[in-house]
Amino acid sequence: MRRTLTENVLILGAGLVGSSLGLALTRAGYDVVLWDIAASHALVAAGLGAGRVSDESTDNPDVVVVATPPDVIPGLVAEVLEKFPDAVITDVGSVKAPILRAIDRLAPEHRRYVGSHPMAGSQFTGPLTASGDLFRDRTWVVTPEPENAPADIAVIEKLARDVGARVVTMPAAEHDVAVAQVSHVPHLMSILTASHLRQVPQDNLQLAGQGIRDVTRIAGSDPSMWRQILTSNASAVRHELLEVAQDLAFLIDQLERPEQLEKFLGMGQAGALSLVGKHGQDPIDVLEVTVEIPDEPRALARLFTDIGEAGFNVEDFELTHDQIRQLGYLSISVEREVAEQLRANIVERGWHAWSGSRK
Amino acid sequence: MRRTLTENVLILGAGLVGSSLGLALTRAGYDVVLWDIAASHALVAAGLGAGRVSDESTDNPDVVVVATPPDVIPGLVAEVLEKFPDAVITDVGSVKAPILRAIDRLAPEHRRYVGSHPMAGSQFTGPLTASGDLFRDRTWVVTPEPENAPADIAVIEKLARDVGARVVTMPAAEHDVAVAQVSHVPHLMSILTASHLRQVPQDNLQLAGQGIRDVTRIAGSDPSMWRQILTSNASAVRHELLEVAQDLAFLIDQLERPEQLEKFLGMGQAGALSLVGKHGQDPIDVLEVTVEIPDEPRALARLFTDIGEAGFNVEDFELTHDQIRQLGYLSISVEREVAEQLRANIVERGWHAWSGSRK
Repeated sequence: MRRTLTENVLILGAGLVGSSLGLALTRAGYDVVLWDIAASHALVAAGLGAGRVSDESTDNPDVVVVATPPDVIPGLVAEVLEKFPDAVITDVGSVKAPILRAIDRLAPEHRRYVGSHPMAGSQFTGPLTASGDLFRDRTWVVTPEPENAPADIAVIEKLARDVGARVVTMPAAEHDVAVAQVSHVPHLMSILTASHLRQVPQDNLQLAGQGIRDVTRIAGSDPSMWRQILTSNASAVRHELLEVAQDLAFLIDQLERPEQLEKFLGMGQAGALSLVGKHGQDPIDVLEVTVEIPDEPRALARLFTDIGEAGFNVEDFELTHDQIRQLGYLSISVEREVAEQLRANIVERGWHAWSGSRK
Repeated sequence: MRRTLTENVLILGAGLVGSSLGLALTRAGYDVVLWDIAASHALVAAGLGAGRVSDESTDNPDVVVVATPPDVIPGLVAEVLEKFPDAVITDVGSVKAPILRAIDRLAPEHRRYVGSHPMAGSQFTGPLTASGDLFRDRTWVVTPEPENAPADIAVIEKLARDVGARVVTMPAAEHDVAVAQVSHVPHLMSILTASHLRQVPQDNLQLAGQGIRDVTRIAGSDPSMWRQILTSNASAVRHELLEVAQDLAFLIDQLERPEQLEKFLGMGQAGALSLVGKHGQDPIDVLEVTVEIPDEPRALARLFTDIGEAGFNVEDFELTHDQIRQLGYLSISVEREVAEQLRANIVERGWHAWSGSRK
């Protein structure tokens, strides 16, 4: 096999992200070498199939990925820039501009460093929870600087695509504002909700349902890791949190004003719906197929059987009714390209059905 | 079959909760009659197997469950108290004290009304999303008043247990404070997170991952329903939100103070962990079984195979390492009663393992 630029990858840090990357790159045909300050982590990751353990003396990587906790990333990047004078270096840190500034101080010549940030992880840590599918269909942000060589940027972008991620390119500062908005603030809202439970008597926790569990899931993440992320992005996070604090004060004022309150709840609903669709993809383009449900006892069960047998992936459905005609209507949301097919299929089975845009 | 007190149940409102209750009660052997202001909803629910459609003239229920939106509950309770002079009446409203006060104004003689609140639902609405398992292992709060007859309270408690719920009894006012804490405030935190997305450029939404989706899931719920819930519990919710607002102000101040910030994140983590365990149950009592992982390439994979073949349900696991001896340790959390069995089983397969309390 011809040796390509990105054949040999050294991953520094065999935690959840580093080990998962090792698994995914190995599967994609890369030769992966793993190193971790805790040698047993690299051993475990290698044992799971994420690569070979580094023996340091013979490492000669084309690409180095620094996948350690944020605080030690700049020092390691500076070290490998010097140690491997031909390698392209990237990292997986969650905040890009402060890392770049720190590297700038430690190793002023850093044009072979191309920052990046795979938007993937979990509330777990360590190589045991690694998965070769961690990056599949997720966004991997690459944050190049003007001094980076296009070929080096391309190497990192290819690596991200080779593990199934969707590459988004943006400047480091913009990236940091975006993650404050869609990751760091939601994390802190989860923390605020969960930490407020310290004020709640144990007996009242019996009433906790699925809702609060969803809202507080990410609050279970490692406090030390998140302290590093948040302190390094403090000014962007503060800006967003001050907006949230204003919203919260407004909301407290509106609690007994039904109209204003419902309007605010509607803004929340709209925000939640704006995230519907798959990770890192545009929202799915759906059409509604509406079916008339005659006034017969088993009509609906029969309709569901028919839809099921037609084998379409139903994204959502809603029941509406006509008070005067005493008829029910089932609106089924499906991807635009299959809507007509579903409609035809249902009509063939004897139903009245039509399709159109979602209300 | 002998006619028991709770044989015939009339459910008013065939939405998600009413229809699910009809499915569950029918399965438990009750004779269920359904009514909804939208007749097609009752038809659909009946079609799914949740009971018979009411014909109003011949209804003669032993129990009436009012499962409508909160705003119309008091009026319907007053109406059925008069219409069915021998029936026990309950409702499923999310806030109890204001409903009780409203009923008191409409029908001063209401000793046959026993308030209750099943802690179950979803972000969906309508009979199509109904499930006969909606109440299984969930908490169903019953909020009796001094004037209620013990036999009437028992009827409602039995009905809740018959659909698989775990009954918790508490006064209406206490219930309302508890739901403000574990349901209404988390809902509003989800709303604040989701509504803040209106400030976020579309391009930045590409970076949204699973975390924000979890936090904002319940914000997708029906704004009109939640407006009714929140306005009727406004004073308890305000009290809690003012505490959250203080926490938020504190948090904004600590963003660049690593120690204090990490401490606050730790409080959030502790709060999230306090909810671990199944709904309406005490947290699972777990022990840790720790296994030494020798320095061999496939040791960990082999260990996982052995644990898998032993057939235990692993709640959690963590990898630690000994820097000096270059050994890894796998700590496996399992329920206390099976820990010793797991340890023995693993030792039998040649591993060094011991068990003890979770750190």
